[in-house]
Amino acid sequence: MKNLILVKLGGSVITYKERPFTARRENIVRLAREILKFRNKNTDLIIAHGGGSFPHVPASKYQTQNGIINKNSVLGFSLTADAAIQINRIVVTEFLNLKAPVASFAPLSFIYGKRVFFDPIKKALEIGLIPIIYGDVIMNEKQGFEIYSGEKTLDLLAGKFAPDYAKVKIIYYTDVNGVYDENGKTVSSITPKNFATIKKNLTGSKKTDVTGGMLHKVTESLKLVQNIDAVVYITNGLSRGKSTKISKD
Amino acid sequence: MKNLILVKLGGSVITYKERPFTARRENIVRLAREILKFRNKNTDLIIAHGGGSFPHVPASKYQTQNGIINKNSVLGFSLTADAAIQINRIVVTEFLNLKAPVASFAPLSFIYGKRVFFDPIKKALEIGLIPIIYGDVIMNEKQGFEIYSGEKTLDLLAGKFAPDYAKVKIIYYTDVNGVYDENGKTVSSITPKNFATIKKNLTGSKKTDVTGGMLHKVTESLKLVQNIDAVVYITNGLSRGKSTKISKD
Repeated sequence: MKNLILVKLGGSVITYKERPFTARRENIVRLAREILKFRNKNTDLIIAHGGGSFPHVPASKYQTQNGIINKNSVLGFSLTADAAIQINRIVVTEFLNLKAPVASFAPLSFIYGKRVFFDPIKKALEIGLIPIIYGDVIMNEKQGFEIYSGEKTLDLLAGKFAPDYAKVKIIYYTDVNGVYDENGKTVSSITPKNFATIKKNLTGSKKTDVTGGMLHKVTESLKLVQNIDAVVYITNGLSRGKSTKISKD
Repeated sequence: MKNLILVKLGGSVITYKERPFTARRENIVRLAREILKFRNKNTDLIIAHGGGSFPHVPASKYQTQNGIINKNSVLGFSLTADAAIQINRIVVTEFLNLKAPVASFAPLSFIYGKRVFFDPIKKALEIGLIPIIYGDVIMNEKQGFEIYSGEKTLDLLAGKFAPDYAKVKIIYYTDVNGVYDENGKTVSSITPKNFATIKKNLTGSKKTDVTGGMLHKVTESLKLVQNIDAVVYITNGLSRGKSTKISKD
């Protein structure tokens, strides 16, 4: 059995969050080189990334996270979906420039509410492709559509494909040195045992965004490492720094 | 019940077939304006387009239509998929410039061999979005992957959604004035009755391409209009010209 590494590049790592529609090209290239080294004949790779300052502008303007609320909502959806693809194009292009066999999979096209069409990505992994997914907008039954983070899709894929692999590792590249304690120092390890005491000091993510902050990330990661046999790392994607490891025990 | 119009912009209509990676921008804009006029509160729209000279280059170089044949096939897949999205980005952008609520759906993500995940596109139509699909590469069981024309995906969608609509019309924009007879004149109407005599003179498509020529288009259209209650038009997308109507009777 092979191993699987899933990598998430945060929106603040690949875009300038304060500058609409502006990618951090050099950082994308640096991380792409780093990430591609993880891959070998015994290790498959899945890459996810956030949208950062690309979809943020239309999503805020049209309140896309609320679904259909007025006559402009559908055009707002179109513009948000378009912005999500724009940053994905930049990421995919930089990986292709490094001759990596990547392929973009569109959450809007393969996720509907709680239903997921996994077949194409499963086959992509089998033949040696590196799937790239991204923060997107997806359709749902209730409010028409919703914002769907790259992290959420990555967690879905991790849960689905974990049984096919020996070891599963998930690495979140963020704009901080992992999870901080009350003194602003990186917590090296989080497990279900010590989470309760760490929880009240969770201040890792500098800015809040529509897809949730550090507490959400850690909570979801703890669920994941208990459900599947995986280890999660939250690390700095802007500069070399410390990391927090999240594991079952 | 509403009506549905499905439009296919041929690769030779939106790109210069002889010039790699070169879009016919003005023609895309002109057709986009024309097509958007078909849409009203009683008529939904689905748009498909070919890849033309974008995916043609990597698909030929790596023989992508044959699936996995050597160690470069997977990178060839990546480059072909990327080229398919590049021309899709241009088409989507021009529709968005006209403030049309379009959204791109990726065949690679929602089609696997004979299996299709229709839910997101179905919901998109319900809320008033205009889905745009395109010639792509998709995964399959047997050879790993295959080239999948925009036409093929459009026919799938027509078949699936036709029962939900009162009338269904499909318009193929090509680089010729419909189907020609033995004297090079446009055949105005093709039905199952007169097809046998027309068949031997089918010379409509100037160039052959990997996704089939005019005979294929007519044969598939005849199947479609007999299976679902639809009318097909093959028309000129480069200049105003004559059309061929394909119908049940």
